[in-house]
Amino acid sequence: MSTATARSTVPFSRESLELVLKRRFFFAPSFDIYGGVSGLYDYGPPGCAFQANIVDTWRKHFILEEDMLEVDCTMLTPHDVLKTSGHVDKFSDWMVRDLKTGEIFRADHLVEEVFEARLKGDKAARGVATEAKEDEDKKKRKKKVKEIQNIKLDDDVVTEYESILAQIDGYSGPQLGELIVKHNITNPANGNALSPPVEFNLMFETAIGPSGQLKGYLRPETAQGQFLNFAKLLDFNNEKMPFASASIGKSFRNEISPRAGLLRVREFLMAEIEHYVDPEDKSHPRFEEIKDIKLKFLPKNIQESGSNELSEVTVGEAVASGMVDNQTLGYFIARIYLFLIKIGVDKNRLRFRQHMSNEMAHYAADCWDAELQSSYGWIECVGCADRSAYDLSVHSAKTNEKLVVRQPLAEPKVVEEFDVEIAKKKFGPKFRKDAGAVEKWLLTRTQCELEDLATELKDNGKITFSVEGVEGKIELDTEFVNIEKKSKSVHIREFTPNVIEPSFGIGRIIYSIFEHQFWARPEDADRGVLSLPPLVAPTKALLVPLSNSAELRPVVKKVSEYLRSEKVPFKVDDSSASIGKRYARNDELGTPFGITIDFDSVKDESVTLRERDSTKQVRGSYVQVIDAIKAITYEGASWAEATAKLTPFESQSGDA
Amino acid sequence: MSTATARSTVPFSRESLELVLKRRFFFAPSFDIYGGVSGLYDYGPPGCAFQANIVDTWRKHFILEEDMLEVDCTMLTPHDVLKTSGHVDKFSDWMVRDLKTGEIFRADHLVEEVFEARLKGDKAARGVATEAKEDEDKKKRKKKVKEIQNIKLDDDVVTEYESILAQIDGYSGPQLGELIVKHNITNPANGNALSPPVEFNLMFETAIGPSGQLKGYLRPETAQGQFLNFAKLLDFNNEKMPFASASIGKSFRNEISPRAGLLRVREFLMAEIEHYVDPEDKSHPRFEEIKDIKLKFLPKNIQESGSNELSEVTVGEAVASGMVDNQTLGYFIARIYLFLIKIGVDKNRLRFRQHMSNEMAHYAADCWDAELQSSYGWIECVGCADRSAYDLSVHSAKTNEKLVVRQPLAEPKVVEEFDVEIAKKKFGPKFRKDAGAVEKWLLTRTQCELEDLATELKDNGKITFSVEGVEGKIELDTEFVNIEKKSKSVHIREFTPNVIEPSFGIGRIIYSIFEHQFWARPEDADRGVLSLPPLVAPTKALLVPLSNSAELRPVVKKVSEYLRSEKVPFKVDDSSASIGKRYARNDELGTPFGITIDFDSVKDESVTLRERDSTKQVRGSYVQVIDAIKAITYEGASWAEATAKLTPFESQSGDA
Repeated sequence: MSTATARSTVPFSRESLELVLKRRFFFAPSFDIYGGVSGLYDYGPPGCAFQANIVDTWRKHFILEEDMLEVDCTMLTPHDVLKTSGHVDKFSDWMVRDLKTGEIFRADHLVEEVFEARLKGDKAARGVATEAKEDEDKKKRKKKVKEIQNIKLDDDVVTEYESILAQIDGYSGPQLGELIVKHNITNPANGNALSPPVEFNLMFETAIGPSGQLKGYLRPETAQGQFLNFAKLLDFNNEKMPFASASIGKSFRNEISPRAGLLRVREFLMAEIEHYVDPEDKSHPRFEEIKDIKLKFLPKNIQESGSNELSEVTVGEAVASGMVDNQTLGYFIARIYLFLIKIGVDKNRLRFRQHMSNEMAHYAADCWDAELQSSYGWIECVGCADRSAYDLSVHSAKTNEKLVVRQPLAEPKVVEEFDVEIAKKKFGPKFRKDAGAVEKWLLTRTQCELEDLATELKDNGKITFSVEGVEGKIELDTEFVNIEKKSKSVHIREFTPNVIEPSFGIGRIIYSIFEHQFWARPEDADRGVLSLPPLVAPTKALLVPLSNSAELRPVVKKVSEYLRSEKVPFKVDDSSASIGKRYARNDELGTPFGITIDFDSVKDESVTLRERDSTKQVRGSYVQVIDAIKAITYEGASWAEATAKLTPFESQSGDA
Repeated sequence: MSTATARSTVPFSRESLELVLKRRFFFAPSFDIYGGVSGLYDYGPPGCAFQANIVDTWRKHFILEEDMLEVDCTMLTPHDVLKTSGHVDKFSDWMVRDLKTGEIFRADHLVEEVFEARLKGDKAARGVATEAKEDEDKKKRKKKVKEIQNIKLDDDVVTEYESILAQIDGYSGPQLGELIVKHNITNPANGNALSPPVEFNLMFETAIGPSGQLKGYLRPETAQGQFLNFAKLLDFNNEKMPFASASIGKSFRNEISPRAGLLRVREFLMAEIEHYVDPEDKSHPRFEEIKDIKLKFLPKNIQESGSNELSEVTVGEAVASGMVDNQTLGYFIARIYLFLIKIGVDKNRLRFRQHMSNEMAHYAADCWDAELQSSYGWIECVGCADRSAYDLSVHSAKTNEKLVVRQPLAEPKVVEEFDVEIAKKKFGPKFRKDAGAVEKWLLTRTQCELEDLATELKDNGKITFSVEGVEGKIELDTEFVNIEKKSKSVHIREFTPNVIEPSFGIGRIIYSIFEHQFWARPEDADRGVLSLPPLVAPTKALLVPLSNSAELRPVVKKVSEYLRSEKVPFKVDDSSASIGKRYARNDELGTPFGITIDFDSVKDESVTLRERDSTKQVRGSYVQVIDAIKAITYEGASWAEATAKLTPFESQSGDA
């Protein structure tokens, strides 16, 4: 039986996968012996190594490949920064409460769950078969949905539900409230009435310092730290544009009711890139290299029409047709795809979904999510947004620090511009210690703001404004300030760069890969195989002495030393379990190669190499075998290429 | 002039170092454009790369070398866990408040500062010269200490102050309060009276989940997550002992008034090892390998006598004499030393200070800090404690989960032990759903506790106790339970392992290395050199084309590609600055090698290799030069060894 066929023979079971992940300590609920805390997980040794390898691959694929500037910023973030970024006001989900028990639900998830259950009940009532392998989690949840039985719905109700579900990410809180009332949604477990949706801010709050007066939050993303360092990074980059910063680190999100394991957690590893581009030129010099890659897109207009049909086109076509806003965005979408495939994502379960107009932030030029399909449905794992100049602009306006790029113009340009003239000498006596702040405020206004101020000055003979940190209203007349449109010759172009932001949720990607690469051999369905790509597998090779005999130990030592010197991560399993059992254990750990040492090895230093997925075996000297492992793992060679010089070997161990 | 001589010619200036670190964006205050938050710093690209290289070296030196089990646990930690560990009650510093202005000071630091200032004033009054290069920071602080002038102190006061300073880490809050009263310490800036010391818990608090009812903290160390996973890790390790877990991640400490830059911060990267050993056998199989390493020790009895004289002995002697408690502790102390030296710590500015009896936790068997000397004094950068069975025991007692090792005995042993017999059938009817919890409680009592319960049962005919999660008092008489001493034959030895915990503050180590490796060339004192070891330097090589001529570009491209294929991190500097300036910039970045490409390179592919510290130059083919760089960086070759086949080269560029 071919590996591909074998892999699809035993139906996927999330329960089996979860058992394996737990048994092999890929991850476990944090504080397990204290009963755990929902949404918090620890990675055990193989999970930790898998994560480290993915991060390492990410660093090479993005940071090194494009010479990005990596920074490491703090997670603790003061209130002011997140107020400016909009998180204090808008980083929230809508929750509803059971009016009797106080139980809390996330509103959009509840609506989704109830509609899906009703649709399933409808299908059953109509006698339409639902998918054979129903998701256990949904089954469990459906059991809880008491009110919903196999009830046939009106055809137009079915259409309405389906249309709502296709756009569920676009509803506001009040709209969700209306849906709950209109469709008579209650607590599925007991039928109790629910409160209207209330906004709940998802940031963890804390106080910095002993006085307790400096309010802070745990960052909800790594992006803000990068934006705040923009001027320093541009300087470090010798003022060259475009360039990107990048950051890998934990972020936090106080989820309302986390379920779905690693897919919805309260503390998670993110890897984020902020690529700064000229707003007038978003072409990308390396676009050629990726333009022919064909991807599955789900654009916004399709979703808004209530459908989720995918359109498969090349990135080049997507940008040319305007579906994807610009080359740089398209470039990163393709690079994200290449990265995900490299680390084990199944390309047939990956789509790029565009944000709908009502879902996208008002400032964003375009936004696409890489969604991975698992037994939980399609889940956003990477975001890729063109955030325009929003972030740099708001922080600049708030702090009066210029966050701009200045480029010499090839030829000077004459422009008409509002200009501020300040009678500096009069500022000192009038404002004393505040003189600098007031001056700075005036000199950092945008052209738009200056136009308004100029009108005010002309109409009233004075302008009135406030400056943060300066008490009271400030009034200035023409003795102090003059604002007029002037033509001047400009030698420097000054602009706020736009930001393209690819943002990766590492834990969600990891879990999706587990689902994409987990299967069971038909002949041993109780045990799983995790077909992790060798590049990112926690351990590359398992060293298995055939028996515990002292005779074999010197060879084990010699091969171990060689593996170590060649920097191939490996483990020795010299337990007394049978070879078959030891291999099975390592199939579950995702270890791609087994090296068996037997009594022939003592004679001629030959060993057997076993491949995890096919269980094919070949024989050769240990140096040849380790060379083959390195070629497949690090140089992308195929099994056939790497083992061409080795001898096929028939298993003696009963491991088929 | 030799490099060593040159390095000591220009006196160290912390101000110059700080300028360089800022100019080259090694790190910067977080949220700088918002005015910053004390105790929070961001790492820029070179700082981030330096940190990543140190972490990578740590991982190889400890985790890979000893096959440790790495885990990644959450930072968010619920209250109960940190209550059990003792952090809720004891992880605090003492603070005093200015009674008029409300200004807050950390009590021990204030006492230290005032005594040091008074001693300095005394020396000045006595006409004793203090060190030539006084620490700028202390100078500034001393300026603030208005009350203290050059006043001669009585001889016995001097002795008293010095003795207090030598033991300052051992004072409790009330004792600090007594010192403040006795020695008339006030707010140094204004002479205002101070409040008595109040305890301030250093953990950042937050609420987990939407109800706000689950109190949590940001972890103050990575250790607890490792302890809680002990049983899973032991299982993962196939029950083999001894073994170690390790974790690298951020921890948090809400410092009262952080100063001292990277040395005292509120969010920091830690790397921690928990090595689990048999309490009856703390020998270490690899002790032989390190026993002859000579280290500088400052044992507790010396400090307690009011002195800080170092004792220089081998680790073997230190363990043999009982100064260091056991071999495993000694082994890790030596391994810590080797690690620190490898990454650039000056071995003459490294000492191991033992905790004094009143400073050490009651349960600790022994504890040593690796302290690094900088312009801020001797600072703890690594702790190495034998924590006995404390952590596993308290978590086990709290959760009723066994955190023990079970080992088959070679021969069965007859022991007298208290044994619990439970009338299981009667438990169900009596306790219903709580039956399991009550049974578990009884079966997880220690021998000590069972002895008490046996006495109680005998004396009163019943025992009374409470079980967490079960309402009310539980009473059981002999119908339900019997507790008696019995002799039995034991085949399994069960024990709680002891924990040896090496714990590294990466940021503090990084800053100390900056101080240890920063110097200025006598001929160019305005510019600094950071002599970071090649292994951990952010970038290994700078590629410098002599001019911007198009003729040189193909060679630059060719050499770049080769460097990339050989995985040597490098940067190209093709700016128009002079060669000398470009090298000087990279001396400040700590880049150990420069590769100059000139017009001869176009002819014969030869390039010049420049060494940062000596500014020595040699010439050879670019392949030879890059081989030399790799040999020095990754294989520990000396300059002489690696460049033996290359031709000495006289600088043409004015870079001496």
